[in-house]
Amino acid sequence: MDLDFQKAGGLVPAIIQDQRTGDVLMLGFMNLEAFTQTLSTGEVVFFSRSRNKPWKKGETSGHVLRVLELRVDCDADALLVRVEPVGPGVCHEGYRSCFFREVNAEGRATVIAERTFAPEKVYSKEKSQ
Amino acid sequence: MDLDFQKAGGLVPAIIQDQRTGDVLMLGFMNLEAFTQTLSTGEVVFFSRSRNKPWKKGETSGHVLRVLELRVDCDADALLVRVEPVGPGVCHEGYRSCFFREVNAEGRATVIAERTFAPEKVYSKEKSQ
Repeated sequence: MDLDFQKAGGLVPAIIQDQRTGDVLMLGFMNLEAFTQTLSTGEVVFFSRSRNKPWKKGETSGHVLRVLELRVDCDADALLVRVEPVGPGVCHEGYRSCFFREVNAEGRATVIAERTFAPEKVYSKEKSQ
Repeated sequence: MDLDFQKAGGLVPAIIQDQRTGDVLMLGFMNLEAFTQTLSTGEVVFFSRSRNKPWKKGETSGHVLRVLELRVDCDADALLVRVEPVGPGVCHEGYRSCFFREVNAEGRATVIAERTFAPEKVYSKEKSQ
């Protein structure tokens, strides 16, 4: 199966979903190398657009994402990765999910979740997930 | 709340999740115009990268996506749209979810879902969702 990496400049978006709860935890991008590493290691590797290189989720925090099931969409240009998340949360701001804010019809965002860990105790100075 | 449209060339990925079942149905992209229309109409509007213009999901099929809750991630560069999907499925290939194939560790894809409708009866010749 060949993924279509062309539509987004060599990357495909990868949705991370908690297999147990069904919660969507985050969205990252993978290039071919990150995708191959994810398949071969069974733990999620993204491509960091800001650092321009592959980065294993949890390399700093220990909050790795164990791949339980990987799905591809009809156009082979998006991935759904169903995972067991290790640790209290995936978000570098200390939440279980990166989607911790709701947006109302006026476009205003409100935090709707509680922090599950203190990010300053988990991450080094440099922002890393 | 300002979305960061810069990281993906004027677009943000938008994950569509069925609020009732928790299933991830598809992933699309929105530009500012599509996002604004989604907020104001309460039904999902994407930006079509292939047609290079906004397109309302369901404009051909009637399978619109009613927005029940909209969330934004920590970096404001991805959206999670929790919806009530109208109709038997969102995928132009006739499945309830576009993620109807599982990928194994060798990278081989297998269909894991049943078709829920006949796409040729729903869509016109031109591929449209």
